[in-house]
Amino acid sequence: MLRNDTLDQWDREAFFHPSTHLAQHAQGEAPNRVIRTASGCHIEDRDGNRFLDAFAGLYCVNVGYGRMEIAEAIAEQAKELAYYHAYVGHGTEASITLAKMILDRAPDGMSKVYFGLGGSDANETNVKLIWYYNNILGRPEKKKIISRWRGYHGSGLMTGSLTGLELFHKKFDLPLAQVIHTEAPYYLRRPDREMSEAAFVDHLVAELEALIEREGADTIAAFIGEPLMGTGGIVPPPEGYWPAIQKVLDRHDILLVADEVVTGFGRLGTMFGSDHYGIRPDLITIAKGLTSAYAPLSGSIVGDKMWKVLEQGTDENGPIGHGWTYSAHPIGAAAGIANLRLIDDLNLVENAGRVGRMFNEALQDAVGGHAHVAEVRGEGMIAAVEFQKDVAAGTFFDPGDKIGAQVAGKLLEHGVIGRAMPQGDILGFAPPFSLTESEAAEVADKTAKAVAAVLG
Amino acid sequence: MLRNDTLDQWDREAFFHPSTHLAQHAQGEAPNRVIRTASGCHIEDRDGNRFLDAFAGLYCVNVGYGRMEIAEAIAEQAKELAYYHAYVGHGTEASITLAKMILDRAPDGMSKVYFGLGGSDANETNVKLIWYYNNILGRPEKKKIISRWRGYHGSGLMTGSLTGLELFHKKFDLPLAQVIHTEAPYYLRRPDREMSEAAFVDHLVAELEALIEREGADTIAAFIGEPLMGTGGIVPPPEGYWPAIQKVLDRHDILLVADEVVTGFGRLGTMFGSDHYGIRPDLITIAKGLTSAYAPLSGSIVGDKMWKVLEQGTDENGPIGHGWTYSAHPIGAAAGIANLRLIDDLNLVENAGRVGRMFNEALQDAVGGHAHVAEVRGEGMIAAVEFQKDVAAGTFFDPGDKIGAQVAGKLLEHGVIGRAMPQGDILGFAPPFSLTESEAAEVADKTAKAVAAVLG
Ligand SMILES: Cc1ncc(COP(=O)(O)O)c(C=O)c1O
Ligand SMILES: Cc1ncc(COP(=O)(O)O)c(C=O)c1O
Repeated sequence: MLRNDTLDQWDREAFFHPSTHLAQHAQGEAPNRVIRTASGCHIEDRDGNRFLDAFAGLYCVNVGYGRMEIAEAIAEQAKELAYYHAYVGHGTEASITLAKMILDRAPDGMSKVYFGLGGSDANETNVKLIWYYNNILGRPEKKKIISRWRGYHGSGLMTGSLTGLELFHKKFDLPLAQVIHTEAPYYLRRPDREMSEAAFVDHLVAELEALIEREGADTIAAFIGEPLMGTGGIVPPPEGYWPAIQKVLDRHDILLVADEVVTGFGRLGTMFGSDHYGIRPDLITIAKGLTSAYAPLSGSIVGDKMWKVLEQGTDENGPIGHGWTYSAHPIGAAAGIANLRLIDDLNLVENAGRVGRMFNEALQDAVGGHAHVAEVRGEGMIAAVEFQKDVAAGTFFDPGDKIGAQVAGKLLEHGVIGRAMPQGDILGFAPPFSLTESEAAEVADKTAKAVAAVLG
Repeated sequence: MLRNDTLDQWDREAFFHPSTHLAQHAQGEAPNRVIRTASGCHIEDRDGNRFLDAFAGLYCVNVGYGRMEIAEAIAEQAKELAYYHAYVGHGTEASITLAKMILDRAPDGMSKVYFGLGGSDANETNVKLIWYYNNILGRPEKKKIISRWRGYHGSGLMTGSLTGLELFHKKFDLPLAQVIHTEAPYYLRRPDREMSEAAFVDHLVAELEALIEREGADTIAAFIGEPLMGTGGIVPPPEGYWPAIQKVLDRHDILLVADEVVTGFGRLGTMFGSDHYGIRPDLITIAKGLTSAYAPLSGSIVGDKMWKVLEQGTDENGPIGHGWTYSAHPIGAAAGIANLRLIDDLNLVENAGRVGRMFNEALQDAVGGHAHVAEVRGEGMIAAVEFQKDVAAGTFFDPGDKIGAQVAGKLLEHGVIGRAMPQGDILGFAPPFSLTESEAAEVADKTAKAVAAVLG
C-alpha cells in the first residue's frame, strides 16, 4: 500500500470530488477520507477507523458490503468477457438474462429494459424516449415534464432540472425551460397545519390540476416522481396520494415515470415502490439496488404502451438514435444477476421490511419524544428524523445553524454514518437490507446520543 | 449455460438494445448475436463463430480482449471494496491513484480529474462546469457551445445536441437551443474541390469567425471537438487546422473542450490527441481508452484556468452541486490503473503508432487504387475507407444503396468486423493497439475482397 501521506497529497492535487467544497479540499482545509475495505454494514478507512454505514453508501449497497457471491460473479465475467457492446442486436448471456430477471420482478405491464450506467443517465434516456414517443404520435408540442420540488432525479442538465433542489440548480442555469415543478407531497411542510392528510392530497391534486391548466395539457408529456421521496427529505407520500395523482395524469394523457432508483428491488420491503403504493407507471427508472452498487448499472423499464409506439418509431425511422458505449456492460450485468439472486436467496426484501420496521420503531422510541424532533418517518429500510426549533408552533431552525449536519457529525463521532439531507434539518438513514436487529438498536441508540449532544 | 433458444427468446422479449431497429429485433426479423468470450483481437459468439474485431468493440477495447492483468485487478477490488462513494472528500486508493496517473499522462496545464461513467456523462459534466465557470465570472450570457457538424459527443439531450449527426437529432427535438454547429474539417467534402488544404483551413476559420460574429462572442462559452473526428467519418483534420481554430477561440475568450474519448490514451500513436495536434484544451473528455472498456469509467480533466474559477465558485457558494452516485467507482478505477500500466508495460502506444501506420499503408495498398475508393485515411491505429460513385467527379452513391453497410456486411462474412459509419459510405477501422502485423494484413486483404464483392 502507498504511504498515506502520498495518497493524501495526490487526493488534494488531482481528484475532483463530487458534491465537495473544491477550494477547501484542494487546500487541505477540509477532511478527506480514504475507504479501504468493508463488510456487512461496516466500512473501514485506511487509518483503521470503522463505521456502521447506516446509509449503505448512497442508499445503494442494499445487500451489504463484502458479498463474495457478487465479487466472484464480477471476477468470472471479467475473465470470460469483460466487454462487448449491445448495439444493433448484440448481447451477452449476462445482459439478456438480467433483462429477463428484471421484467420478472417488475410491476405488471412492463415490456423491455434499456440499460444505462447510473440513475441520471437512465432518466436522461427516459426523457429522450418520452419526446420520441410524442413525436411518433404526432404531438410535437406535448413535451414538458412535470417534476416535484424536492424530487431528486439526477445531476445532469436535464436530470438536474428534474431535480427540485436549489443546490443542483444554482449557478448552473437550471432548471431548463422544458421542466416545470409542482408541490412536494411533504405533509410536515403542508401549507396549512390544520390540513388533514386527505385534505393535503386534495390540495396537491388541485395544485397539479392548476399547473396543467395553466400550461395546457397538450404541452405536457410526463410526470416524474419517486414513489417515496428520497434525497429531498425521505418523505413517504400521504395516504392516497399516488392513486389521486395517477387519475389526473390519466385524464390528461400524461405519462408517469416512477423513479425507483432508491425504492427499486426492495428498499420499502416490497420489490418495487410502484407496487407498494399502487402506481401504474409507463416508465420505471432503476439503478442503485439493481447491482447494490457493486458495479455501475442502471435501467429504464419501458411499459407496453410506450414500447408499441417505439416500435412504430423504428418502423418509420429506422434504428433508434440512442446508445451509450457501456449500455448493458457485462460486468454490471453479471453483478446485477448475482445481486438479485442473493436478494432472493437471503430473503432480503422481507428482511428490509421486517428489520426496517423495527428500526423505524427503535428510532421513534429513541428520539420521537425529543422536544426538537418534529417527526420520525420512514417505510421499510429507510427512515428520517426531522428537527424543528419549535415543534408545537411548527417553526424551523435557521439554516445557518446547520442542526442536521451537526447531528450527523456527532453521530459519526459515535461510529455511525447517517446523512444530513439538503434543505432542512433532516437526518436520513437507509441501511443495507441485511441490517441486524442489534445494529438497528445501535443506530437508534447512538442517534439519541447525537441528538442530545447537539440539542440537549 | 442456457439453451440458446431460450436466450434468443428472452433477448427478443426483454432487451431494449441501443441503436437498434426495435420492431425488427423484437419480432425476430433482424439477426441478434450473443458474444460469449474474447481474446486478443478476436471475439467469439455462442454459436462458435469467431471474428477479428477490427473496431475493438466501439473503439474502446484498446489493449485487446482477455487481459488477465485487468480482470485480476477488477476481481481483487471487487473482493476488497466493490463500492464506496466519492462525495464530500471520500475516495479509495484506486480512485486517487488513477487521478494522479491520468494527470501524469495528460497535456500540460491540466489540474484535476472528475470521474464519470461514460463519454456522454463526462461531456454533460463539461457543459455544467462551463456554465458554472461563466456564472462565477459574472458572464451569465456567455453560455452557447459551438460544436461541429459530424462531431460525436454523446447521446444525451445536451450531448446528443453537441453531436452533429442527423440520426441523433431526428425525432428527439435536438439540438437544444444552446448548441450551435460549425462546419466539419472534412477535406474530402470541402465545398469546392479546387480548394487546397490550407485554403480549406482558411475557409473553416472564416466560417467559425462568421458564426461567432453572428451570435456574438459574449454569448459563446466554449467550442468542443474531437482532435480527430471519429463517428462522423474518421477524419483527420487538415494540416494546421487546430492551431488556426485555437487562435480564433483565444481571441474571443472561448473555452476549448478536446473530446478525447476515442483519441485519449494512445489511439493516434501518442498519449493524447491534443499533444498530437498541438491543441491546448481547457477541458479534456476521456472514457473508452481509460479502462479499455473493461469497466465503465470516464472523466473530465479540468485545466488550471477553469479550476481556479471552480475553487472561487465553491468559496462563494459552498460545495458544488454536481455528482453521480458512481463517480470514481472503485471497480472502474482499478480497471483504469491496470489498463494504463499494461499500456506502459507493453509499449502499446508505440505499437498503435507503428502497426497502425502499417495497417493504414496496407489498406491503401489493398483498396486505395479501386475505382470507387475516394480516400483511405487515418492516423495511428484508426482508419477509414470512403467510397464514391465517381471519384473523378467527386459524386457520392445514393444513400439508399447503403454501399458502406454492404461492404461491412461482406467483410463480416469474411470474419472481420469493421463499422459502416453514419452519413456516408465509409468503412471504419479502429483495432486494438495490440493488432499484429499479420492481423493488419488480414484485415486489409479481406477488405479488398469485400470491396470487390460489392463494387467489382
Ligand atoms: C431517485 C433517484 N433518481 C436518480 C438518481 C441519480 O442516480 P445517479 O447518481 O446514479 O446518477 C438518484 C441518486 O441518488 C436518486 O436517488
Ligand atoms: C468522441 C466521443 N465522445 C463521446 C462519446 C460518448 O461516449 P459514451 O458512448 O460512453 O457515452 C463517444 C462514443 O462513441 C465518442 O466517440
